[in-house]
Amino acid sequence: MTQKPDAPDTDLDAYCRAHQPRFVDELVEALRIPSISADPAHRDDVVASAEHLADAARRAGFQRTELLETAGHPALYAELTVDPALPTALIYGHHDVQPVDPLEEWISPPFEPEVRDNALYARGAVDDKGQVWMHLKAVEAHMQVRGRLPLNLKLVVEGEEEIGSVHFDDLVAQHRENLRADVAVISDTPIFAKGVPSLCTGLRGLAHLEVRVSGPSLDLHSGYFGGAVANPVDELARMLASLHDPVTHRVTVPGFYAGVREATAEERAQIAALPYDEAALLREAGGAPATVGEEGWTPLERMWLRPTLEVNGIWGGYSGPGSKTIIPAHAGAKISCRLVPDQDPEEIAALVAEALRKAAPPAVRVEVHVEKGGRPVVTPIDHPAVQAARRAMRHGFGADPAIIRTGGTIPPVATFQSVLGLPSVLVGVGLPDDQIHAPNERFDLDQYAAGVRVVAALWDELPGALRPAP
Amino acid sequence: MTQKPDAPDTDLDAYCRAHQPRFVDELVEALRIPSISADPAHRDDVVASAEHLADAARRAGFQRTELLETAGHPALYAELTVDPALPTALIYGHHDVQPVDPLEEWISPPFEPEVRDNALYARGAVDDKGQVWMHLKAVEAHMQVRGRLPLNLKLVVEGEEEIGSVHFDDLVAQHRENLRADVAVISDTPIFAKGVPSLCTGLRGLAHLEVRVSGPSLDLHSGYFGGAVANPVDELARMLASLHDPVTHRVTVPGFYAGVREATAEERAQIAALPYDEAALLREAGGAPATVGEEGWTPLERMWLRPTLEVNGIWGGYSGPGSKTIIPAHAGAKISCRLVPDQDPEEIAALVAEALRKAAPPAVRVEVHVEKGGRPVVTPIDHPAVQAARRAMRHGFGADPAIIRTGGTIPPVATFQSVLGLPSVLVGVGLPDDQIHAPNERFDLDQYAAGVRVVAALWDELPGALRPAP
Repeated sequence: MTQKPDAPDTDLDAYCRAHQPRFVDELVEALRIPSISADPAHRDDVVASAEHLADAARRAGFQRTELLETAGHPALYAELTVDPALPTALIYGHHDVQPVDPLEEWISPPFEPEVRDNALYARGAVDDKGQVWMHLKAVEAHMQVRGRLPLNLKLVVEGEEEIGSVHFDDLVAQHRENLRADVAVISDTPIFAKGVPSLCTGLRGLAHLEVRVSGPSLDLHSGYFGGAVANPVDELARMLASLHDPVTHRVTVPGFYAGVREATAEERAQIAALPYDEAALLREAGGAPATVGEEGWTPLERMWLRPTLEVNGIWGGYSGPGSKTIIPAHAGAKISCRLVPDQDPEEIAALVAEALRKAAPPAVRVEVHVEKGGRPVVTPIDHPAVQAARRAMRHGFGADPAIIRTGGTIPPVATFQSVLGLPSVLVGVGLPDDQIHAPNERFDLDQYAAGVRVVAALWDELPGALRPAP
Repeated sequence: MTQKPDAPDTDLDAYCRAHQPRFVDELVEALRIPSISADPAHRDDVVASAEHLADAARRAGFQRTELLETAGHPALYAELTVDPALPTALIYGHHDVQPVDPLEEWISPPFEPEVRDNALYARGAVDDKGQVWMHLKAVEAHMQVRGRLPLNLKLVVEGEEEIGSVHFDDLVAQHRENLRADVAVISDTPIFAKGVPSLCTGLRGLAHLEVRVSGPSLDLHSGYFGGAVANPVDELARMLASLHDPVTHRVTVPGFYAGVREATAEERAQIAALPYDEAALLREAGGAPATVGEEGWTPLERMWLRPTLEVNGIWGGYSGPGSKTIIPAHAGAKISCRLVPDQDPEEIAALVAEALRKAAPPAVRVEVHVEKGGRPVVTPIDHPAVQAARRAMRHGFGADPAIIRTGGTIPPVATFQSVLGLPSVLVGVGLPDDQIHAPNERFDLDQYAAGVRVVAALWDELPGALRPAP
């Protein structure tokens, strides 16, 4: 911990401090399971991960656990009912992880967790197994120290967050009655910077799609045919290039910005007040040479308040050693858009698909496959649960948290709001340079310890905030 | 054979016809060797291929064979000296082959040759092992039927043609005295169409390079950083798109067309007189939906008379199953240009590299690696050796060949011209839809048989053409 708490230690804090080394050891075991949801070869590992988590939840004090099957990977559901008269928090997290390539860039293997420089390195360390584990260990602390929780808890840990929570809406619809609660608590976001604790009140949404361009049915000799037929890679490059204005860096897809609720002067002022450090951002961004983005907005605004369109991957033709002088038969790209209120993921994906089709010449065939996206969401800062989370963070970190947003997406947060009518509190404790979705993902062990303390304190703060004494 | 020869069969023709099934079986054995020069894993196979060919050359009648080492893969050299007073032909071919990916698109495995519908399917079947084999079998026919050749032969079969003949200039410089001859004979080009025999008098040159774009040192979470830093895939797409005018399809690289010797009205008229069949071209081009290319030129002119720039491959970010919402750290592309007289490969590669660097924003790093290219070359149609080849083709195919060019590149042809002062005769017999450089490469067995007859007849025609009786 870099800050000394200014509130005195509680009995819960003492327990957490004493047991922290074991908390790390237990998390290491969870991280050994390669629960990559995007890769069908890891289907059984995702199931194993859910089962391992169910055991851990029961040992922590949850009374009942159940694997909720979906059309894809299963979620874990767990309940701890203290008294129906008390308020209920629904904790959400995910136990699936991102793919690991490029594997050769990992210093230690992604599923052989290793502690270096007080951080635990593994795929899923902070996104999101480590932050789910904070919740299990906070429950354990309450149960071991006091024998009971001051509220009821429901825990749902999804197995498909990294593939866009494709079946989570169905799952929530199916288990709607079971999932009733007063508030949703999610720990899957980073704080602003180490030493600058922060509470996140908004998430961007996500639209994604894959485009495939084909010309000849086979790779052609570029000598014999070069000059006379369209080259799918060239055409795809031109199509992708057409999606941004090269000068203003605005997305050129017609209608893309139509749904954007413009940020208020107050929101922009709050962001301008943060200790923004361009050099630190570039460091966190893996040494990117410069920030660059939509004209008229600062880097933090571009990441939090503005929608974007990114190519996540591209392929086509020969990429092996040496050269191969062909006109490739196919080319493809994966594209995603980060969205802000009130953009609609399906509508945006359809607009991008249409723009790609229009940009393609008749000499190639274009196929666009739209994947399920997630809605953007913002929670009001004056909600009592947000205020309770603010006090819990202050206890855990010893400093009042800044109010921020994040550019990331957690589609279930929008689902909790729209289907269950729940406000969401985002008590994430990751750091911006944790390298999630990249090689050498890690969880800073000070942040892990602080996170358990924050969540344990949150259970003390929430009941009074949600059901104030009359 | 689709045409009946109008010249009477010779003793050589009868021998070839009788032994053709064995000629096929022997070629099959050569095709089993996966001599992929681009892939370092196949280094030993390229050596094995050269050794196998040396044995075959000695059995055919060559007196002396030698593996010529280079800094890369070895070439085979063989000699058959009849009488120093006779003219000497230098036969050139290559025993290395293109890579085979995408492997899953091959109907039979690339190195397990299979005859289907009177064609032999295998990587290298026609490009160029099958056409080298025509030469061996023509020599065998002369030796077995008449006991001697009417001229001296030198044979050089390269192991690096498919990787741009990177060390061939060095090899020719080193063995310059040994390679002295009166004419170079190359069989590595297709005829115009099945039933339309043709003699090729011009080849395009080749420049190639690889460009790599990098931004962050690691893949970034597109939610946290999207909007604030440059995306190397997006930037590469924009850079590649900038290399062509989307309307005229002309290459926009400054200076690209500066060295082009404009085609004469006569050349264009010769090409216009050919039986051009757009539907057939599109079929040969793997069902490409339409022809498209540089404004102001016909498809054949675009392929033979005009230079082009093609992206041969592109890569960057995630291309696996599902989605991965990242800003990729790197992206790259392989680019090649087909050149016409008097463009210089090194100069063109430098111009393209410069255009790419200029098109890149400062927010990414760009690296360009230029690979060795090959010069374009055109041989005068009135050269006696070309006229001899025309008669030999007429004998082998039973019809006067059309005079054409090809869009392909054989860098050694330019080397023979510039270093050894040799005119080149291109007696290739492949078909345009042989799928060279693609899955399911094949050699039509009628073309193979005709090719052996053509070459056998060429050895009868050449001495008188090169050293006319006084």
